[in-house]
Amino acid sequence: MVHKLTQVLEPKGFISAAKNVGIKDDTLDFTVIFSEVPAAAAGMFTTNRFCGAPVLVGRDHLADGVLQAIVVNSKNANVATGQSGIDDCQAIVAAVGQELAIDPGLILPSSTGVIGRRLPADRMIAGIPGIRQMMGSGKLTEAAHAIMTTDTRPKYGSVRIGDAVLFGMAKGAGMIEPNLATMLAYFFTDAQISGDQLKGMLHRVVNKSFNRVSVDTDTSTSDTVICMANGLAGEVNLHDFEEAFTSLAIQLARKIAKDGEGATKLIEVQVEGTNQEEDAVKLAKSIVNSPLLKTAVFGRDPNWGRVAMAMGKAGVDFTPERARIWFGPHLVFDRGAIFEQQLKEVEDYLQNEEILIRVSVGDGIHSSTVWGCDLTYEYVRINGEYTT
Amino acid sequence: MVHKLTQVLEPKGFISAAKNVGIKDDTLDFTVIFSEVPAAAAGMFTTNRFCGAPVLVGRDHLADGVLQAIVVNSKNANVATGQSGIDDCQAIVAAVGQELAIDPGLILPSSTGVIGRRLPADRMIAGIPGIRQMMGSGKLTEAAHAIMTTDTRPKYGSVRIGDAVLFGMAKGAGMIEPNLATMLAYFFTDAQISGDQLKGMLHRVVNKSFNRVSVDTDTSTSDTVICMANGLAGEVNLHDFEEAFTSLAIQLARKIAKDGEGATKLIEVQVEGTNQEEDAVKLAKSIVNSPLLKTAVFGRDPNWGRVAMAMGKAGVDFTPERARIWFGPHLVFDRGAIFEQQLKEVEDYLQNEEILIRVSVGDGIHSSTVWGCDLTYEYVRINGEYTT
Repeated sequence: MVHKLTQVLEPKGFISAAKNVGIKDDTLDFTVIFSEVPAAAAGMFTTNRFCGAPVLVGRDHLADGVLQAIVVNSKNANVATGQSGIDDCQAIVAAVGQELAIDPGLILPSSTGVIGRRLPADRMIAGIPGIRQMMGSGKLTEAAHAIMTTDTRPKYGSVRIGDAVLFGMAKGAGMIEPNLATMLAYFFTDAQISGDQLKGMLHRVVNKSFNRVSVDTDTSTSDTVICMANGLAGEVNLHDFEEAFTSLAIQLARKIAKDGEGATKLIEVQVEGTNQEEDAVKLAKSIVNSPLLKTAVFGRDPNWGRVAMAMGKAGVDFTPERARIWFGPHLVFDRGAIFEQQLKEVEDYLQNEEILIRVSVGDGIHSSTVWGCDLTYEYVRINGEYTT
Repeated sequence: MVHKLTQVLEPKGFISAAKNVGIKDDTLDFTVIFSEVPAAAAGMFTTNRFCGAPVLVGRDHLADGVLQAIVVNSKNANVATGQSGIDDCQAIVAAVGQELAIDPGLILPSSTGVIGRRLPADRMIAGIPGIRQMMGSGKLTEAAHAIMTTDTRPKYGSVRIGDAVLFGMAKGAGMIEPNLATMLAYFFTDAQISGDQLKGMLHRVVNKSFNRVSVDTDTSTSDTVICMANGLAGEVNLHDFEEAFTSLAIQLARKIAKDGEGATKLIEVQVEGTNQEEDAVKLAKSIVNSPLLKTAVFGRDPNWGRVAMAMGKAGVDFTPERARIWFGPHLVFDRGAIFEQQLKEVEDYLQNEEILIRVSVGDGIHSSTVWGCDLTYEYVRINGEYTT
């Protein structure tokens, strides 16, 4: 079977360039994305108290709801670097502003990589002149490469809504349990949407997508999601736009889970039958984050008891005697009854690359879906060897 | 240097036997501990909603504050087994009551091992006659062997308070993040202490010891801590007793952390300078539970930025610019200043088997210490292969 490559659509008026500025090695580590006109913008940032210098500077620059450029480096997160880190960040933003001939306040900086090291700011600033010259359209996928750290593949997607296009890119593989905001994700659209509309929409979209992903329960210090809308394609149906935005964000969120550090399998957990949506999310997160469940999925061990354990510790009030647990199509626990004869089938099912664990706890009308990945030798290797 | 073996003390009037009843293989999997007279007893149990059948039965038998025997099996937890599991548990307790000629209501059952499998109750009951005959004093250390699952060594200790002796044993290596109660731990003393006194004391002791241990954030469905005091040695100074009890419980808690599944290192985290004790515990738990910090310690990677990250995500209000972080004696982060030249020394320090991470966040008078372990390939192997 021949797969037809899906064409990547890009919104009007966004140009970009990516290059190596020698932060750590000779791979792409620096990218600037530029809108030809100022764009309405909304963002969400990490809730981690030890947040990075770029998050502090970026929050400030985003306060008026307008951005014209984003500058991102990988290989160093510029976190826990004190006032020097903020100075470094502002110097880089100033240099980019000069290169693009725009106010630095219109530029949002992001950094991702190791925590607690000074940026090589001089080297980075030396790499900025000439970058405007390199910029062009059709290069957003290259920008998606430049923001990668331990990601094994770039993550991006695009969707058309009326005359407008929405392009999204994300990075993130470890230190992923977003809380109100998430890893790095950027969305660019030429639709005309006000900053206020964009802000409300971004919160709803993130809550259904990136906030439902967890690789390892660790919340990054650099989490950032930004959406810029430059209006060059005119108005769109906002309901359609939000629907497309949500589905593109879920697509990227799933890619992040599937590309989790060391992961061999995507785990999707669906919980249904709760009386509050919050309870469904808590139960689902507790299951998808359980190291014992994650290692069992890695080892293709049909140990559904660990799903029961993870449900029980979630701090949600439910009655075990009314609970049901499925692995894919296989019902393994039905309100107190165990199906031991199903275990061989579950073991076979666990050979798939995408594992669905479904749980019902009663008759409530609420449900939730979250995404995660298995816990493997490779996760331990990657994170035991990251800086050394 | 020759180490002198510390003599194990045992309290008067407690006898025990351990044997194999063929639950899974031919290792010790069954033990009964018996007090010659009924004893004041207090207990704490798992907060997991999917708690095991023995927890339900045990809570009931403990309600009057009196116990005379404990029966424990390893290799099967009898959890998520519905009414059949409760029936199995009660049949075993009845058989033990008959063998010891005591009321089954004086017996506390515990089971630990795989979740979601029926106990081989018939085989177990067939192994009970004759066990009274096997019982003797000086055998509590053998009982500590019989309750092991993935533990690599038995965990026990004893202490003298006046004329009385307190003996404690514990098991637990994975699925360990107790919440209000913990894995399996049993304490036996011949001191004379009332059930009410014992109950208050047990809560205070557990809160400073087992509730400060985390191997993998997963809360077992079978967590149980019991203390029995048969009074045969008469009254003791309660203050001294509680101090000795606390230090013995901390000793066992540290042993559990050090013997965490796959662990190569004990991690002790001390947090100081908070305004509430609860905040110190939250920060310390967030650090000791971070998979990224745990893998860094395993890999001897001096990546202290992960300590900062874990502090920041703990949901505690503090000012990063006032925080300090030490690895052992090495100060690596001092209120915004980074000591990169210390990293080589930290790398050397991480070769130790016991790693101390100390954090100060301000001038508050509260502090907390918690214990955990590193995250290794072996944890993944053990838990990817547990049932299969």
